[in-house]
Amino acid sequence: MTADAEALDAGDPLARFREEFVFEDGGPLYVDGNSLGRLPKRTQERLAALVDEWGTALVRGWQEWIDLPVSVGDELAESALGARPGEVVVTDSVTVNLYKLARAALASRPGKTAVVTDAANFPTDRYVLEGLGCELRLIGADPVEGPGVADVEEACAPGDVALVSLSQVGYRSGALADLPAVTEAAHAAGALMLWDLSHSAGAVQVGLDEHGVDLAVGCTYKYLNAGPGAPAFLYVRSALQGQLRTPIQGWFGQRDQFDMDRAYEPADGVVRFLAGSPQILGLVAVRAGVELVREAGIGAIAAKGRALTAYAVELHDEVLAPLGVELGTPRDPARRGAHVSLRHPEGWRVCRALIERAGVVPDFRRPDTVRFGFPPLYTRFADVREAVERLRGVLERREHLEVDAAYTRVT
Amino acid sequence: MTADAEALDAGDPLARFREEFVFEDGGPLYVDGNSLGRLPKRTQERLAALVDEWGTALVRGWQEWIDLPVSVGDELAESALGARPGEVVVTDSVTVNLYKLARAALASRPGKTAVVTDAANFPTDRYVLEGLGCELRLIGADPVEGPGVADVEEACAPGDVALVSLSQVGYRSGALADLPAVTEAAHAAGALMLWDLSHSAGAVQVGLDEHGVDLAVGCTYKYLNAGPGAPAFLYVRSALQGQLRTPIQGWFGQRDQFDMDRAYEPADGVVRFLAGSPQILGLVAVRAGVELVREAGIGAIAAKGRALTAYAVELHDEVLAPLGVELGTPRDPARRGAHVSLRHPEGWRVCRALIERAGVVPDFRRPDTVRFGFPPLYTRFADVREAVERLRGVLERREHLEVDAAYTRVT
Repeated sequence: MTADAEALDAGDPLARFREEFVFEDGGPLYVDGNSLGRLPKRTQERLAALVDEWGTALVRGWQEWIDLPVSVGDELAESALGARPGEVVVTDSVTVNLYKLARAALASRPGKTAVVTDAANFPTDRYVLEGLGCELRLIGADPVEGPGVADVEEACAPGDVALVSLSQVGYRSGALADLPAVTEAAHAAGALMLWDLSHSAGAVQVGLDEHGVDLAVGCTYKYLNAGPGAPAFLYVRSALQGQLRTPIQGWFGQRDQFDMDRAYEPADGVVRFLAGSPQILGLVAVRAGVELVREAGIGAIAAKGRALTAYAVELHDEVLAPLGVELGTPRDPARRGAHVSLRHPEGWRVCRALIERAGVVPDFRRPDTVRFGFPPLYTRFADVREAVERLRGVLERREHLEVDAAYTRVT
Repeated sequence: MTADAEALDAGDPLARFREEFVFEDGGPLYVDGNSLGRLPKRTQERLAALVDEWGTALVRGWQEWIDLPVSVGDELAESALGARPGEVVVTDSVTVNLYKLARAALASRPGKTAVVTDAANFPTDRYVLEGLGCELRLIGADPVEGPGVADVEEACAPGDVALVSLSQVGYRSGALADLPAVTEAAHAAGALMLWDLSHSAGAVQVGLDEHGVDLAVGCTYKYLNAGPGAPAFLYVRSALQGQLRTPIQGWFGQRDQFDMDRAYEPADGVVRFLAGSPQILGLVAVRAGVELVREAGIGAIAAKGRALTAYAVELHDEVLAPLGVELGTPRDPARRGAHVSLRHPEGWRVCRALIERAGVVPDFRRPDTVRFGFPPLYTRFADVREAVERLRGVLERREHLEVDAAYTRVT
């Protein structure tokens, strides 16, 4: 007998945070916050205020706006990443940030010519690394459990690896890597370690400083709820900042930005990894999203994430496994992010049927994975149960066989 | 005797566009739209609607949002740049876009090892080019008239130039380059030509296709009025797109973005120069700004810009020159963008006095330049006269000698 969702919700110390978000009356059961997080009410207000400020302060607004990449980075560092002020900036996209850091890392290790990643890492990560012009060595990690220490040790064994770049939480499986041990393995092999935190920032504890991570990037539109295309972040360990140079030399990373007649000289600190003008609307949204994480506490958020996914796993075993669904996420709660992957041979059609027939919005990742994301700030245990129940209904009624089988793009 | 501002305003075919923008009651006389453009009323509405859409459509919004970099790029291409659909995308910052295109250009010209720019080009342009790891050859162009054909011919004479990169309108002088002739000179030397259109897009006619320009970048927060840190754009001539590859290989530039298990293969067309997730709020603001340019017509905008700056030059000669101000902008109307530069030995303090004592917001560029920007969509001839009159008052009363002389950063 599974636990009682209402009892779990009644005991949830984060329950009140649901009211911080916009919910549409009659809206669908949304379990895709791991793709695009919900709109916080305060963000709606802050964005309107920022647009007003643009209209009236005009260029004078920049006196405050100009510091946002650093100040919001500091807030993010402390609230969600386990990093110190001066180690994180909010800027550009994950893709661009990964490019900047990976190239800088490679250039700082002249004797080393290889970069290691997981063959199942998120596409943009692989593409960026592929484009660096060095050897890209792919780990063929377990598709459910993700890359582990042994994988990294093996890939680094030749001694030629400059950089190991992995996702802390796998986008498909939801597997949470053993960040401390993998980082240590990379270091033991003389490589720098870069983590993509897109599926972990705001969902799990990261501990960048504690675990000696060198570099990290991540997005803000998933568990940080900063909206579609909000700016990403990057982290560079303090002690490393002076040794690395961005390949994209821009005026926001210049030592004296408004002394405009000098040659390029990188600023001190992580600010040297800024490039062009920061997107102010997006930064204001990131700040609001980070505030919510700080108020709830990343420890409490991570604990609730483990509880929500544990409940989903329990329901999977009881309700979904008999209907042909296979769990694509690790069973150890310490090895999970805040989403679970449910594999089914007709996964694409199952996903479409959930959307078209059952009022559930999950997403799909080829070849067979339906993802249910449970952002701890606004997901109830009752939502987990309801999503599973509706999936059971689709499968029992075989509604997935009634929808169009043609695959079309989904984000 | 100078012309009558009221008569000029009465005959202005674009006068009605002023009502499209937010003006604060009692706000300052703003002549810095060349740094940050004003807020269009429709943008305020569109951004609020987009935030609502995020809150309710959630991830489903991406079905439409995903095409914005291309569709807004097409609209910008036709309305303001003289380019065709499929040649422009709105994405990233000027800095990042310039990096992508310059590196791609350099890689496409293996025998050529030098890049040419103007020593007085905007700092981020110089910094980016400096970071490419090739020889950066600097033109020491005339500080008022800017780089010309002879400068480019001389710099390219050794035959080793892969890329010439210049700003169409100089950020300090406001000089408008002879784009057709300079482009031709670069081509004659076997180089590709890249124009930074940050101070020209939405202010002057560009004619990218007509003049065979290869590459261009530019921002949208000046004369396109898209707001602080709105995404930039990039242009790649159709015939060249297949030959160039972005150094930043991201999933938005991948041939089949959601077929996630493939190696990187660039998409056809200019879309290959996208990298990470597009910033949707910024794109919606760019679309609104571009609409206004289309409705007014870039020809009419450019004509009014010439008339406004001609009026400012006339007033300068009559009113300001006797007070020690020197014109830092070309006198030929065909060689000007939409701002004028007023040089004064105490330029910084003059700028501060205008802001603190006279209710005028211009900006300052070292060492001695006060910039007055006159965005044609919302600037009246009466504003030009009023700005000059207030500057006269400051100088006559020597109020600039009463403000703090210490230079602090301005954007």
